[in-house]
Amino acid sequence: MINVGFLTYLEDRLIKVDQKMMSRSAGYHPDLTSAFEHLMTSGGKRIRPIVTLLMGSLLDAEEEKLISLSASIEMLHTATLVHDDLIDGALLRRGNPTLNSHWTPAATVLTGDHIFAQAALLAAELDNSEAMRLFAKTLSIIVNGEISQLFGRSHLPTRDDYYRRIYEKTGSLFALSARAAALISPADRKYIQPAEEYGKEIGKAFQIVDDVLDFTGDQVRVGKPVGNDLRQGTPTLPAIYYGEQFPEDEVLLACLDGSATNSDADELIQRINQSGVIEKTLDEARECAENAVHKLGDFPESREKDSLEKLGMYIIDRDL
Amino acid sequence: MINVGFLTYLEDRLIKVDQKMMSRSAGYHPDLTSAFEHLMTSGGKRIRPIVTLLMGSLLDAEEEKLISLSASIEMLHTATLVHDDLIDGALLRRGNPTLNSHWTPAATVLTGDHIFAQAALLAAELDNSEAMRLFAKTLSIIVNGEISQLFGRSHLPTRDDYYRRIYEKTGSLFALSARAAALISPADRKYIQPAEEYGKEIGKAFQIVDDVLDFTGDQVRVGKPVGNDLRQGTPTLPAIYYGEQFPEDEVLLACLDGSATNSDADELIQRINQSGVIEKTLDEARECAENAVHKLGDFPESREKDSLEKLGMYIIDRDL
Repeated sequence: MINVGFLTYLEDRLIKVDQKMMSRSAGYHPDLTSAFEHLMTSGGKRIRPIVTLLMGSLLDAEEEKLISLSASIEMLHTATLVHDDLIDGALLRRGNPTLNSHWTPAATVLTGDHIFAQAALLAAELDNSEAMRLFAKTLSIIVNGEISQLFGRSHLPTRDDYYRRIYEKTGSLFALSARAAALISPADRKYIQPAEEYGKEIGKAFQIVDDVLDFTGDQVRVGKPVGNDLRQGTPTLPAIYYGEQFPEDEVLLACLDGSATNSDADELIQRINQSGVIEKTLDEARECAENAVHKLGDFPESREKDSLEKLGMYIIDRDL
Repeated sequence: MINVGFLTYLEDRLIKVDQKMMSRSAGYHPDLTSAFEHLMTSGGKRIRPIVTLLMGSLLDAEEEKLISLSASIEMLHTATLVHDDLIDGALLRRGNPTLNSHWTPAATVLTGDHIFAQAALLAAELDNSEAMRLFAKTLSIIVNGEISQLFGRSHLPTRDDYYRRIYEKTGSLFALSARAAALISPADRKYIQPAEEYGKEIGKAFQIVDDVLDFTGDQVRVGKPVGNDLRQGTPTLPAIYYGEQFPEDEVLLACLDGSATNSDADELIQRINQSGVIEKTLDEARECAENAVHKLGDFPESREKDSLEKLGMYIIDRDL
């Protein structure tokens, strides 16, 4: 699941996280168990567990608790993806068929609910009220983000709209990954807020890069169709920058008002790739990664701190 | 919402429970807020909050906490109903159109998720790890029950299958309502287990009566089509008793294997009503209500204990 040198020492613990997740599918209906195992083994990068494990180890949290917390957060993430794919009608995720593509909506809704329930149970077993509240709060932020997107109007969002949306969608869960790790550690409480801010910035960088890959990647490597967001009517940062430069661009306007054909979308993707906004967008992701490093200024020096610092650049270089 | 003499002293607190639920819809997208408010005001009997308020007051729990707990449990209940209606394709609930009947599946899934997130947040704010674990555990039991039902084969269930299913669907939430009230109270821990068992028995009585009403009620009073469970391929206790007496009944078999027409189902409902199994089923609900009363044997005498004892009979007589 991870093939970068500076993280190999996490491998054993990441395997334990996977085992912990798998253990939550035992004893249920066989169809549910197999759907669950399929979802849990289909290529997630485990980037949120990596943040939790690194931040928690840096702050001397118990390994057992960190593994439960990591599993809980990765399952919360997976549950929201399952419902999300149903809502979008997405057929591919991480290059694999979604549950939604071969199950009924009923089975998909319930599988998401089940994974969510197991995630909540794992979080509750940590016996840390503050972490549990944060877990519930994060779920509510993610769902509210999805609702705003569903009911949102089709216009070109501002950069602030975009930042809010990616915080709801991604940053909040990275913030949970880092903050909850600090909450369950015995370390001084002064680390809690910077840990959260680190998570937020890393999550922001991660999502910006994900949105760039939607323009620059190919279907095989990204695991979903190129320009998917744009075709779904969700302009991301490259399109927003492009729209600031060319507010009257007719293919952009067609994509926004839903009148675009597939070849309009192809044309827009090409124009965005050639306009220089991709590099500008990546600069912004780099800035977030640097901000994340600054948040760690007061943290004790250690191998984990070093890895957390490298993580931002790894995220940015991952598939580009 | 309640119009029975022995419960009128709860009215102020039940209003506060409603206000607490409503307060959780503020600040979100207007369409979500209005769907949420519609759901929360469409005729729920608030029987779970009644159990929580009575049990908690009997054991001297703080009113503020009991109101949050009641709101949290009623919202958890509502969230599962929203997803349930989507899964069943139900168009009516409590005599009102379901969300599902006029919203897209996407909006329905997300509204359920939102209500669920708010319920989890309220539960987490109680700052009681044991209650939180029980809350998550109960969600997992309910979802697992729905999954078993979705994937279940169409044969006549045994009485044990039926009891397991209604525990998963209803009893577990009543058990949570009573046990969590005991958990957040300052009373001796010896009351926790009997409180849970009280909830379980009352929930069982409640669901059995609900299943009887599906045969004996009319659509206007019950709020959904008569014989709905049978038409959906879910035989409940009256049909199970009937099947034990008449295992070769051809309309029963047709309803079980999915080949029944609407008039077959009408015919079966009539046969069940005339066979005497309804009275036998109600006897069983009465027995559960008596069991519930026995569980309260060691509890201190008070108006609340008195009301908890009467609740079973009220449930049984409610609409018959």
